[in-house]
Amino acid sequence: MIARETAAPVRPFLNWDVITDPAQWAADVALVGIQHSEPYAGDPRPNDQARAPDAVRLVSRTFCYGPDQWDFDYGGPLSAVEPARCIDCGNFAWVGGSYDAYAEFITTSLRQLWRRGAQVFVIGGDHGVTIPVLDALDAIGQPVYILHVDAHLDWRVEVGGVRRGYSSPLRWASTRRWIAGMTQIGMRSTGSARRGEVEDARRYGSRIFTATEIHAQGMDPVLASIPPAVPVYVTIDADGLDPTEMPAVMAPAPGGVRFEQLAPLLRAVAVRQRIVGLDIVEIAPQFDQTNAITAITAGRLILNALGASWGADGAYRTGRPPAG
Amino acid sequence: MIARETAAPVRPFLNWDVITDPAQWAADVALVGIQHSEPYAGDPRPNDQARAPDAVRLVSRTFCYGPDQWDFDYGGPLSAVEPARCIDCGNFAWVGGSYDAYAEFITTSLRQLWRRGAQVFVIGGDHGVTIPVLDALDAIGQPVYILHVDAHLDWRVEVGGVRRGYSSPLRWASTRRWIAGMTQIGMRSTGSARRGEVEDARRYGSRIFTATEIHAQGMDPVLASIPPAVPVYVTIDADGLDPTEMPAVMAPAPGGVRFEQLAPLLRAVAVRQRIVGLDIVEIAPQFDQTNAITAITAGRLILNALGASWGADGAYRTGRPPAG
Amino acid sequence: MIARETAAPVRPFLNWDVITDPAQWAADVALVGIQHSEPYAGDPRPNDQARAPDAVRLVSRTFCYGPDQWDFDYGGPLSAVEPARCIDCGNFAWVGGSYDAYAEFITTSLRQLWRRGAQVFVIGGDHGVTIPVLDALDAIGQPVYILHVDAHLDWRVEVGGVRRGYSSPLRWASTRRWIAGMTQIGMRSTGSARRGEVEDARRYGSRIFTATEIHAQGMDPVLASIPPAVPVYVTIDADGLDPTEMPAVMAPAPGGVRFEQLAPLLRAVAVRQRIVGLDIVEIAPQFDQTNAITAITAGRLILNALGASWGADGAYRTGRPPAG
Amino acid sequence: MIARETAAPVRPFLNWDVITDPAQWAADVALVGIQHSEPYAGDPRPNDQARAPDAVRLVSRTFCYGPDQWDFDYGGPLSAVEPARCIDCGNFAWVGGSYDAYAEFITTSLRQLWRRGAQVFVIGGDHGVTIPVLDALDAIGQPVYILHVDAHLDWRVEVGGVRRGYSSPLRWASTRRWIAGMTQIGMRSTGSARRGEVEDARRYGSRIFTATEIHAQGMDPVLASIPPAVPVYVTIDADGLDPTEMPAVMAPAPGGVRFEQLAPLLRAVAVRQRIVGLDIVEIAPQFDQTNAITAITAGRLILNALGASWGADGAYRTGRPPAG
Amino acid sequence: MIARETAAPVRPFLNWDVITDPAQWAADVALVGIQHSEPYAGDPRPNDQARAPDAVRLVSRTFCYGPDQWDFDYGGPLSAVEPARCIDCGNFAWVGGSYDAYAEFITTSLRQLWRRGAQVFVIGGDHGVTIPVLDALDAIGQPVYILHVDAHLDWRVEVGGVRRGYSSPLRWASTRRWIAGMTQIGMRSTGSARRGEVEDARRYGSRIFTATEIHAQGMDPVLASIPPAVPVYVTIDADGLDPTEMPAVMAPAPGGVRFEQLAPLLRAVAVRQRIVGLDIVEIAPQFDQTNAITAITAGRLILNALGASWGADGAYRTGRPPAG
Amino acid sequence: MIARETAAPVRPFLNWDVITDPAQWAADVALVGIQHSEPYAGDPRPNDQARAPDAVRLVSRTFCYGPDQWDFDYGGPLSAVEPARCIDCGNFAWVGGSYDAYAEFITTSLRQLWRRGAQVFVIGGDHGVTIPVLDALDAIGQPVYILHVDAHLDWRVEVGGVRRGYSSPLRWASTRRWIAGMTQIGMRSTGSARRGEVEDARRYGSRIFTATEIHAQGMDPVLASIPPAVPVYVTIDADGLDPTEMPAVMAPAPGGVRFEQLAPLLRAVAVRQRIVGLDIVEIAPQFDQTNAITAITAGRLILNALGASWGADGAYRTGRPPAG
Repeated sequence: MIARETAAPVRPFLNWDVITDPAQWAADVALVGIQHSEPYAGDPRPNDQARAPDAVRLVSRTFCYGPDQWDFDYGGPLSAVEPARCIDCGNFAWVGGSYDAYAEFITTSLRQLWRRGAQVFVIGGDHGVTIPVLDALDAIGQPVYILHVDAHLDWRVEVGGVRRGYSSPLRWASTRRWIAGMTQIGMRSTGSARRGEVEDARRYGSRIFTATEIHAQGMDPVLASIPPAVPVYVTIDADGLDPTEMPAVMAPAPGGVRFEQLAPLLRAVAVRQRIVGLDIVEIAPQFDQTNAITAITAGRLILNALGASWGADGAYRTGRPPAG
Repeated sequence: MIARETAAPVRPFLNWDVITDPAQWAADVALVGIQHSEPYAGDPRPNDQARAPDAVRLVSRTFCYGPDQWDFDYGGPLSAVEPARCIDCGNFAWVGGSYDAYAEFITTSLRQLWRRGAQVFVIGGDHGVTIPVLDALDAIGQPVYILHVDAHLDWRVEVGGVRRGYSSPLRWASTRRWIAGMTQIGMRSTGSARRGEVEDARRYGSRIFTATEIHAQGMDPVLASIPPAVPVYVTIDADGLDPTEMPAVMAPAPGGVRFEQLAPLLRAVAVRQRIVGLDIVEIAPQFDQTNAITAITAGRLILNALGASWGADGAYRTGRPPAG
Repeated sequence: MIARETAAPVRPFLNWDVITDPAQWAADVALVGIQHSEPYAGDPRPNDQARAPDAVRLVSRTFCYGPDQWDFDYGGPLSAVEPARCIDCGNFAWVGGSYDAYAEFITTSLRQLWRRGAQVFVIGGDHGVTIPVLDALDAIGQPVYILHVDAHLDWRVEVGGVRRGYSSPLRWASTRRWIAGMTQIGMRSTGSARRGEVEDARRYGSRIFTATEIHAQGMDPVLASIPPAVPVYVTIDADGLDPTEMPAVMAPAPGGVRFEQLAPLLRAVAVRQRIVGLDIVEIAPQFDQTNAITAITAGRLILNALGASWGADGAYRTGRPPAG
Repeated sequence: MIARETAAPVRPFLNWDVITDPAQWAADVALVGIQHSEPYAGDPRPNDQARAPDAVRLVSRTFCYGPDQWDFDYGGPLSAVEPARCIDCGNFAWVGGSYDAYAEFITTSLRQLWRRGAQVFVIGGDHGVTIPVLDALDAIGQPVYILHVDAHLDWRVEVGGVRRGYSSPLRWASTRRWIAGMTQIGMRSTGSARRGEVEDARRYGSRIFTATEIHAQGMDPVLASIPPAVPVYVTIDADGLDPTEMPAVMAPAPGGVRFEQLAPLLRAVAVRQRIVGLDIVEIAPQFDQTNAITAITAGRLILNALGASWGADGAYRTGRPPAG
Repeated sequence: MIARETAAPVRPFLNWDVITDPAQWAADVALVGIQHSEPYAGDPRPNDQARAPDAVRLVSRTFCYGPDQWDFDYGGPLSAVEPARCIDCGNFAWVGGSYDAYAEFITTSLRQLWRRGAQVFVIGGDHGVTIPVLDALDAIGQPVYILHVDAHLDWRVEVGGVRRGYSSPLRWASTRRWIAGMTQIGMRSTGSARRGEVEDARRYGSRIFTATEIHAQGMDPVLASIPPAVPVYVTIDADGLDPTEMPAVMAPAPGGVRFEQLAPLLRAVAVRQRIVGLDIVEIAPQFDQTNAITAITAGRLILNALGASWGADGAYRTGRPPAG
Repeated sequence: MIARETAAPVRPFLNWDVITDPAQWAADVALVGIQHSEPYAGDPRPNDQARAPDAVRLVSRTFCYGPDQWDFDYGGPLSAVEPARCIDCGNFAWVGGSYDAYAEFITTSLRQLWRRGAQVFVIGGDHGVTIPVLDALDAIGQPVYILHVDAHLDWRVEVGGVRRGYSSPLRWASTRRWIAGMTQIGMRSTGSARRGEVEDARRYGSRIFTATEIHAQGMDPVLASIPPAVPVYVTIDADGLDPTEMPAVMAPAPGGVRFEQLAPLLRAVAVRQRIVGLDIVEIAPQFDQTNAITAITAGRLILNALGASWGADGAYRTGRPPAG
């Protein structure tokens, strides 16, 4: 049966209140775990990535000792930055029934968060979980630009007849009229994309920066490719980062984007324009190191975007001064 | 806040329906995950054991290929044995608020299951999760006898002022008037028990079989110590088993009970009298082998009790013939 | 293309000569690795089990320090026991082409070994590799009895249309007219067998001893079930042993056969009648401990059968006195 | 340079006082770590086994929660059993200089402990560390009988010219006139022994019980083989136990002695006669499980011998009543 | 005995045809595994590195999803780039007999490949396997320049009398008259080289770039040091790369060359001049991460060189247009 | 009791003489292990970091093959660089008694080394071990400047009443009048510092370079911030480095300082001014990779500072020419 609520997590993200009933979701910042996407035939369900949201929450204290501790990445204590209502909405678990209904429940629930103005952080699940999230972005009320970090292009129309699987989220985005465009960075090695998908992405106008280009030119051209006045949604496939830094992925590819390249980019975008949401997907905890570095790095990416969005420079582009 | 429902699991136990709303719990067999107990000062929350219910569910296919597969442990396919309504109730997650309210929610929910005649399987969490379960056993309507498998005695009145922690479940049981008595097996090495707790347990009338006695004399005296006509509740601390067989525990002690000793005992009890419930607690997934043997063994213990309870010999002591 | 020779191993088994050209196989004892079976749709090829033959060879020195060292399991040095011509035939690798041709190459090659009187040890690969081996047993010239150690029954006629996969070797055996019968031991938990397969096996006359029965009654009834005057072929699925002792398997099931139960049984059979061959299959090295215990245990099982077959008591039932 | 004191451990064994100056060693019970033996050419120095004494101490709280906790193995709290002066003498570290001087320092130091009546527990180091310990047993003042638990015989006169290495301790014992005889149990698989060493051991009168014999007949014949009125020294090679229970060894061999077999034997000897000392050697921490089961099992073996020696039944054969 | 063919691999590299008979080797691109070098006294045989060729092949699908997938490293699908005849020649296994004969077999076989114009990729084995490969380079018919990536210099004349071991390949190269010179990059920490070897290399004219210099100045000076019109042979010791990126090596040294530095260098050389061959050696699979990153990175380095050699820019310097 | 000597290590650092008696410490270079700091309530004692000194020594041969091998990091063989008297002073073990006395013993012992002119290398232990070392720096006889590498600021006055714990070493330094000032690099993520500690550090005049600043600007500004004519003491928390390079830490934070950034900085300081000492702390061996990369990297950092201090350029600022 389909849950009418989300499932409570093993422990909250940071010290945030857990509210699993969508009817009660009124928040400035919300975090949700989405554990499932539309399955491809032959893939195990649930996949290992379904464990990622709780794996990240579990190490919350490791990536943020406490809200009053000074964070050197964005320059201040979290308590001085984060707005009043930060909530952990739990996990969208799917334990049977129709996938359509599950996806619809996700989209409906996220629309509600965005209609009330929240900044939304999502932890997957595989990259298919981004699709019902994209569908909810129409609630922003203006076109949203996508910043995509990944080793792979993810532009398949379908695989084995499935259109909402983990190989398709950016193709899906290209078909939503409320998506303003996209910048895709970190591409390298091979994935599901063939010549046709590469050509389609270019024809659409996607700004693609391979990993090679990023190592050669840095992140300035990437920042320049993002129109400065539109809301941005960020989608990060963990395999976009270098596998030494986020080893817990299904398809590690050497030569990836480094944390010290990506974190400043996220902060630069956040202080310049509104990041309405950010997802981190494709973490497979079974491959993590014993020091949980993949989960910790995921948490730090979220905190960098959060801190820069609401801190003195960013203030989530609303004019509201930071609390601290 | 306290969930008014349980949390959906990563995937169901076997192929059972997931029903997270206690109001809808009408079942012949129900499985619940209970992730938290009353915490001792200084212990991490959540502890690693909170991950155990989903860890066991995740390997469901490994310990039961499918309901039509012949199970050589209890002699038949599960589909021929299990009754019509088997449900997975999800997890009792606790993400803030009063522990009292959380415990009360557990007790109330389980009472409802037992009042409707269900056989209940519980996966912890640490051994403190047994305490609100014991409180619900008054719903059985007649005294219930406890079979306890553990390396440790668990008879502390309190530790640091906490009375419902993982060192106290059997002491707690001794104070409930609907508990008919107890047999405790597998004791070895040291735990929280001091001379006083051992003497109290003996004075109460607990039948204690150390691991040494079990290796010397077998399980026949254990079976003989259990009064044959009363309902039985089984509580299994994973460290009661030998640490080679269930390595994923916090306090491994060599010389434990073997699966080939315990599984036949459970089946013998199940075909002789009604096992109203069984819990397996104290699994710490971080210490499991890469082949997940601890989680698999937990699942096999549940299936042995379930299969023998409802199979031709057992039929859960109701006269209802098995389906197959 | 199909190799017309077998592939040389990473290192020989023990200090045996490596001879990869079947035309040169004249031996008293021969060991072969068979890495592949007929694949089921969706299974990875090669599977992890294909690495097992070399994994066992690699630890040869750990399970046998040298031919002059006293072996306390069968009571003497290997050099005093083993006959003159012990060879390692390398691996049957399959890297393309028709599976039929590959299987035919195996059967033809093994027939030649048996026609010349060799005792043959096989390391799989999954349990499907036993099938072309069974086909070669007609070269023995008289009916051969099967001793099968496994958690599972392996009596499927087919799975997804494939008749020679790892779920079918004992069914396959039952259809070969040169197979005299079979004893199957260690069955427990569930596998691919449904009610129909269990009934077919019993109807055929298979003597099945579940793991529960072995733990209750010991190995004497097993030995008694094997007709004493016929040649025996032994097929050991590593998951037949307890997963604490052979953890590197795909489907670990608690409560398995112990080495201290199986090794004496093998020795008892070997000194009583001719063991024409023995295979050990389904070792998945990725799940082994860092001390390589699964590979070592496999090697010790082979040495126990070998040593007892050719030692003072056994002498491979030929009347030839042992060398030492 | 040669230390004139032993080296302080990372933490004490249990809560015992650490006294590293041999001049101050006056004790009822003493524990020492001996990290080195005479090296064979080509072996790394230090070997991994040198880390074992501190590895065992590190998990002290896991195998003994505290001195007032009831120990179900020997039936009582340690505080009621152990005598007044229990000390941890630290480690005999060797960091250069002559091995002869190092061995002499060990022998001299242990003689002093034994002359003052202490019961001595030793943690190796490889099995060569037993040799200078055996030399010190002349301080007991009467012949001492050896109980040896091992997969291997350890009767080499020399290896590569080295006479005090890990393959020789029992041969060495046979040449000391203060050694009354020996019982050797657990032999299986192969080691450094050839036919000559086996014959020498038998000719000397060693009572050898292979692992096969122990599994077939139990420990009663072993106990009967030990003369009941002489002091006993116990030497346990960790690979004598089953590798599922003590996996952290260099040469694991399946089918070993189980803790539930050995612990009762140690207790039976301890209540019958004086155990003047016991060593546990050949633990290689690099191969231990993440739950440290090898180190814990070593600690439990020591506690079983200690508890039974000094408890109500044993009282270290001195007539002094236990404290509790 | 010496194999007269190479041994078939566990699975092919990518989807290439496996041809193990050297007589049939007519190819545009060929990959071989060479498992052994001339052994130093005391080193284990086979060493762990012998497992590397099959470890890399096993993860082929991870580093190349399929020939039609777009590869962002060299910009196109492999199927549009690779020439018609790509073969996997299997492994040069050595299981006894003379090492001289084994080395001669390697040299003769590779000469044949090069005489027919193939581009050859080699996976070791340790770095000694490069030596018989260097001997075959005379078949190129003109001087060949060496690009060497390593933490170590590898310029020993001999070690313990052995001249063809893993410490000597670049010294060996300096003595072959068909070697035009060498550039050595990535040197750091210490290895077998002493002052004399460093001076000899400099005197010979080797262009040495330490890892420190590469991190300070980038790869442009390296590229400039390679004469632009000669054929190049590349030899990559896995420990030349940073141990975070290729952790599975025997002698990890921090501060190594990064994939994002090396891959562009390989591509730049490949589009400028002919890379007649490339080896990757010294991968020790036992130290790899669970995500197999070392094996994957090895595969990606091969694909970068291959793709750039035959792609639009490179076309293996033959004028033949790429297929796609 | 308090040791009056230090404890001998498992093996020496490199091939240095071990001298555990402080009375005999007359050296040019000395290495000590300090295993303990003042404990915080609730923290385990000993902590895992206490194992680090021996973990680093154990891999000595991996990070320095031998004193005559050419070291490409600082350009020459160690034997040509290191002065005559290099000693390993063993470990400061603490096994009971007053922490004050333990700290006093450390301070007194180190003062003696510094009074005699030694360069001192310290391996912790956690970061609290730096505090008694700082107290001994008054023996230098002139103000000493601190270079601090860490993810965290470590400026807490106290935690739970403890002033000498691992969160306080740099605060402690700021209160010693013989400390000339400090440069702190690598700060990122959060730690124990709150707004107050950051402000105090800035007010004191600490030159703080966050990890972000180092990745953006390189190490030149760091070098410029260190006054060029004063003696320098370096304190390196392993978590200051990137967790891909030193994974074995308790609080890994992505985006850290790279070895290829830090090693040149250390060399640049060493050739410009006198580095009187250097500590590396907070290595938790339980989290290290199987290739021991954290321990190896620690050794390489020490060797870089040592080699540059005493080599041709540095010569430890004494005018004494290097030996080689």
